[in-house]
Amino acid sequence: MSVNRTAHRAVTDRAAAAPVDVPRGLAGVVVTDTEIGEVRGAEGFYHYRQYPAVQLAETRRFEEVWHLLVDGELPDARRAAAFTAETAALRGLPDEVRSALPAVAAAGARSGPLAGLRTALSLLGAARGFRPVYDLDAGHRREDTLAAVAAVPTLLTALYRLGQGLEPVEPREDLPYAANYLYMLTGTVPDARRTRAVEQYLISTVDHGFNASTFTARVIASTGADVAACLAGAVAALSGPLHGGAPSRALDTLDAIGTPDRIDPWIRERVLAGERIMGFGHAVYRTEDPRSRMLREVARGFGGPRVEFAVEVERRVEAILAELKPGRELHTNVEFYAGVVMELCGLPREMFTPTFAAGRVVGWSAHILEQARDSKIIRPAARYTGPEPVTAAR
Amino acid sequence: MSVNRTAHRAVTDRAAAAPVDVPRGLAGVVVTDTEIGEVRGAEGFYHYRQYPAVQLAETRRFEEVWHLLVDGELPDARRAAAFTAETAALRGLPDEVRSALPAVAAAGARSGPLAGLRTALSLLGAARGFRPVYDLDAGHRREDTLAAVAAVPTLLTALYRLGQGLEPVEPREDLPYAANYLYMLTGTVPDARRTRAVEQYLISTVDHGFNASTFTARVIASTGADVAACLAGAVAALSGPLHGGAPSRALDTLDAIGTPDRIDPWIRERVLAGERIMGFGHAVYRTEDPRSRMLREVARGFGGPRVEFAVEVERRVEAILAELKPGRELHTNVEFYAGVVMELCGLPREMFTPTFAAGRVVGWSAHILEQARDSKIIRPAARYTGPEPVTAAR
Repeated sequence: MSVNRTAHRAVTDRAAAAPVDVPRGLAGVVVTDTEIGEVRGAEGFYHYRQYPAVQLAETRRFEEVWHLLVDGELPDARRAAAFTAETAALRGLPDEVRSALPAVAAAGARSGPLAGLRTALSLLGAARGFRPVYDLDAGHRREDTLAAVAAVPTLLTALYRLGQGLEPVEPREDLPYAANYLYMLTGTVPDARRTRAVEQYLISTVDHGFNASTFTARVIASTGADVAACLAGAVAALSGPLHGGAPSRALDTLDAIGTPDRIDPWIRERVLAGERIMGFGHAVYRTEDPRSRMLREVARGFGGPRVEFAVEVERRVEAILAELKPGRELHTNVEFYAGVVMELCGLPREMFTPTFAAGRVVGWSAHILEQARDSKIIRPAARYTGPEPVTAAR
Repeated sequence: MSVNRTAHRAVTDRAAAAPVDVPRGLAGVVVTDTEIGEVRGAEGFYHYRQYPAVQLAETRRFEEVWHLLVDGELPDARRAAAFTAETAALRGLPDEVRSALPAVAAAGARSGPLAGLRTALSLLGAARGFRPVYDLDAGHRREDTLAAVAAVPTLLTALYRLGQGLEPVEPREDLPYAANYLYMLTGTVPDARRTRAVEQYLISTVDHGFNASTFTARVIASTGADVAACLAGAVAALSGPLHGGAPSRALDTLDAIGTPDRIDPWIRERVLAGERIMGFGHAVYRTEDPRSRMLREVARGFGGPRVEFAVEVERRVEAILAELKPGRELHTNVEFYAGVVMELCGLPREMFTPTFAAGRVVGWSAHILEQARDSKIIRPAARYTGPEPVTAAR
């Protein structure tokens, strides 16, 4: 870093900032402007740039939405093909990453797949020679995000297969992102319906407001750190139980209920005990979760007893809640039908949250690039409330 | 995670939060109360819990301060010995980490030692089976922080030596933290003066307000993620050029000036060009940086032409700034004499910032433990300022 490039860091940067008190957990505190997307909880609506996200999931390919997030516009057919080829070529892993993955997978058996992804992304960035975004022009920043995102399915599937005692499957450049992900997971090219269902799920998870992982990526980006640093932090935050999503939990609910005749007593018991029912309720949406609505239709496209059972559980939970807790709007969240859809597509449960990450990493990338254009570090304050300092007697 | 433990996650958690506008970069925004420490910029004073930090650095061992930060009080002699033994026993690396380090070191040659530490800490947490802090009691959370901190010098020195084509040196349990760090770096037990100088530097860097890396650790901790997730994120943020510190840059200034006769023209040229002089100026302190004052005394204890030159550069920079920019208080920051001290102690420049991290990781740990006692996720908001969403035509 040259002397000139840091000259703008005025010494008086944070000199006179008086303490500003805000709601706990920074709830509602506007950290920044964004042009990436928005969640309108009261309307049950969310969008990526100027496009409704559900509409994108219904009508577009994953790569088109990735391009929209990172480059700011939907590509035409020619541009989409070029972008798909550009990113497909980035799926292979550097030797240092490949050689370390068995150890990462062995360690991940204890701390879970997101810990493995966190390590692997961190290593990938170093192996690819990622430099601080602060030192890069916009083109190189973008390239680093593409290289990181493109490798996420390769890393996730390799770690999964190594954990199962299987050899990783090399990526195929001729398959789109979603199809290649399923191919690397199983070693078999998936059928079109399953591929499209997973692709729609991935598109629907690309971005969703200023959640803790997205915010973490932006705080790290605000220091000028490299793209892998930002993404490793985001994955780290996503792994926290309070972050939210764990689509496998909704399936656990279906399994625990077991059969249609047990739905009512099981639900009533939980609701009366004041317990939360996994797969229901969302912190932002006051209406039906638009992702849930879309994924229900995807699941219905498959049909079968499992889907019918899920729809019936949803119907009964809503009815019982309306009876026992009138006025409390509670609907399925994205976990519920995401779990059903991923199960229908043959994904193992331990890969549900990693699959979510394989979509969300595109949103994180866009937020990193947007944050990197802002020269202001995100550095809040705390209030010391301990004992007044004294002179320590020895 | 059981159903009961998440029952408190009310659906209406963030329901009615109206947007709150705050200063850019969250400057001065009070995110939380803390009992860990405080920086009083106007007074040139900072403290850990109720003890002046400089006094701790002058009178205490690193392990005592570590105990103070993590357990909340200074230990008596018996407790300090037990704590030192407890943490010394945690310095060895699990096999998965050991086997992956050559690949991490090879990759780190391109992205720098903090990228290597980020990866290695992430891997260590998984190999040690760290679970989400949300799922752990206070005792297990504390244990995970101790295991992570204790391994940081082992990881840093192993990565450094592998990068140099040398075998890592196994930790010695009979040496205190600072001495063992220098021992593993060089393979030789360091002399008492150098050990104590590095120890004082490490103590002085343990905590320093709500900087971006500390905040990152707390945001990730607020999701309930595991200790390694939080620390990997903190290291990621520390690697950003806008985070601040890079003690080697101050030495670069001394090298660029070269000889005492060149001090004045060199400084004048930079100041008149409006350039920043590395090692001078701090975002919070309006007075002399108390860390700088202490480390100057440590350096003077060594004596010699290099120290005399550094003191002369400091004196001339302050005089020239007083002349050319009257009214602008500008003093050496922690980088300046930290660089001098670490050079005197034989640390290679590329290990300066990693050494800083070997001290700061104790502060991050304390913040993770404090944040983990708060059940509220840190999740701010952003304002969408892009085009209004439209219906996408295909």
